[in-house]
Amino acid sequence: MIVERLAVIGVGLIGGSFALALKQAGAVGEVVGVGRKPASVEQARARGLIDRAGDWSEAGQADCVLLAMPVGETETVLRALEPHLTARTIVTDAGSTKSGVVATARAALGAKWRNFVPGHPIAGSEQSGPDAARADLYRGRKVVLTPDADTDPHALAIVKALWQAVGAEPELLDAATHDRVFAAVSHLPHLAAYALVDELAQRADRDTFFRFAASGFRDFTRIAGSSPEMWRDIALANRDALLGELNAYVAALQTLSTAVAAADGTALLEIFSRARDARAGWIDTQDL
Amino acid sequence: MIVERLAVIGVGLIGGSFALALKQAGAVGEVVGVGRKPASVEQARARGLIDRAGDWSEAGQADCVLLAMPVGETETVLRALEPHLTARTIVTDAGSTKSGVVATARAALGAKWRNFVPGHPIAGSEQSGPDAARADLYRGRKVVLTPDADTDPHALAIVKALWQAVGAEPELLDAATHDRVFAAVSHLPHLAAYALVDELAQRADRDTFFRFAASGFRDFTRIAGSSPEMWRDIALANRDALLGELNAYVAALQTLSTAVAAADGTALLEIFSRARDARAGWIDTQDL
Repeated sequence: MIVERLAVIGVGLIGGSFALALKQAGAVGEVVGVGRKPASVEQARARGLIDRAGDWSEAGQADCVLLAMPVGETETVLRALEPHLTARTIVTDAGSTKSGVVATARAALGAKWRNFVPGHPIAGSEQSGPDAARADLYRGRKVVLTPDADTDPHALAIVKALWQAVGAEPELLDAATHDRVFAAVSHLPHLAAYALVDELAQRADRDTFFRFAASGFRDFTRIAGSSPEMWRDIALANRDALLGELNAYVAALQTLSTAVAAADGTALLEIFSRARDARAGWIDTQDL
Repeated sequence: MIVERLAVIGVGLIGGSFALALKQAGAVGEVVGVGRKPASVEQARARGLIDRAGDWSEAGQADCVLLAMPVGETETVLRALEPHLTARTIVTDAGSTKSGVVATARAALGAKWRNFVPGHPIAGSEQSGPDAARADLYRGRKVVLTPDADTDPHALAIVKALWQAVGAEPELLDAATHDRVFAAVSHLPHLAAYALVDELAQRADRDTFFRFAASGFRDFTRIAGSSPEMWRDIALANRDALLGELNAYVAALQTLSTAVAAADGTALLEIFSRARDARAGWIDTQDL
């Protein structure tokens, strides 16, 4: 057992899967779930993701608290939790952006900041809620932790151990690098998929288009099935890095547009080949 | 049996799967394969996709000829084939763009144009070549046929019957509408995926980015694994419609960029929600 009592704030896909996997691994004694919607908390309990519902006071006295609600609620949750946190309670989170979470947690937690280990598991699904939770969600997936010089080494070691217990592979990055990297490989693709679908959906003759969309379209737009609220929060929380990526992407599309307009087959072949080769090289390193 | 002898020009994924499925369905007596690379033709024969290798003369005397080589080679192939075509030989194609093919075929075939049925099966894979061919490639997939007022009804009926024999569902569109629709739902997504991967691949610190790319990135960029030569040809053949789609997409991304820059969460939520709902509505109609 790594911790006696775990509290999970947000009992959906992310928090529920973490709790369930830890329970199955015998890495935790008891899991207390805190959520805004009583029905979701009860659903999580009925599925065995958590042992019981709890409140801020019980969460604050746990050995470890995972924040797994939408990242936009981080400040509200930390302000509510802070008065109840013991000096030894470790807090970690699962937010998709890190610089904003770090700034918020530093401001909200004061001296208890040293027990906060910012985290981001690289796993998910366009499904959400307690019903989507599963014990193998994190198996073989990376989890990025972004501690800084003030982070308590013991807190970091416990959080690493918990993620390893659910099958994840911890990696350390600084928060700014994390946000720059994920703006490019995750946040931009989500916005690009939403933009493509919405642009079509707004056409008067959209049915003709959707009628002939096939598997390439399905896969390209899969992430446009993700939670709009979650991705609004992520886009706002990682605004600067995301704007840089959007600009770079628009420039890349304009380069393609220029080549198409000029019927420059050589330039198109070069871009397409470089992309195909880079993706093939990447996929060889993956176990997705 | 629908036709006694079928000729397939290009014995890769598209032509090989068509031939194999027709043979398995007993819809064709003999399949003759024509290809630029003797090794591929032999591979197709060894896999049983075709019965034997043939030349332009044998292809021209078949009951039906499927053009299944890259769309950029359509003119060369039709010029080579035309002198050998009998008055009753039906020709069809599987090219991803149709207006250019129609113009080329009209010019190359003269009076024999009426036996040409332009087609586009909405099926494929980022795999290519005879080894990727499979008999179920077209099962449950649409095939768009774009005949015009001159097209011989018998030729159209035979081509429809062949596609139905391989499990596909024929749909009729005019060539211009076809090209406009596929520019939006297929050609643009391919260019958008290539652009995203290439933009990352050209960065000096690309390894840090690819290291953390995960399943969302994998699916969004799956089509960037497609044949660069094929997609160069398609982009050039459908230039005007594609440029319109690229412009519309860049405008949609710029709208998102403006909303992110202004921290306009309401606008972002509206766009993301509309896209999520439109995609969910579309996926409900699909059997992909």
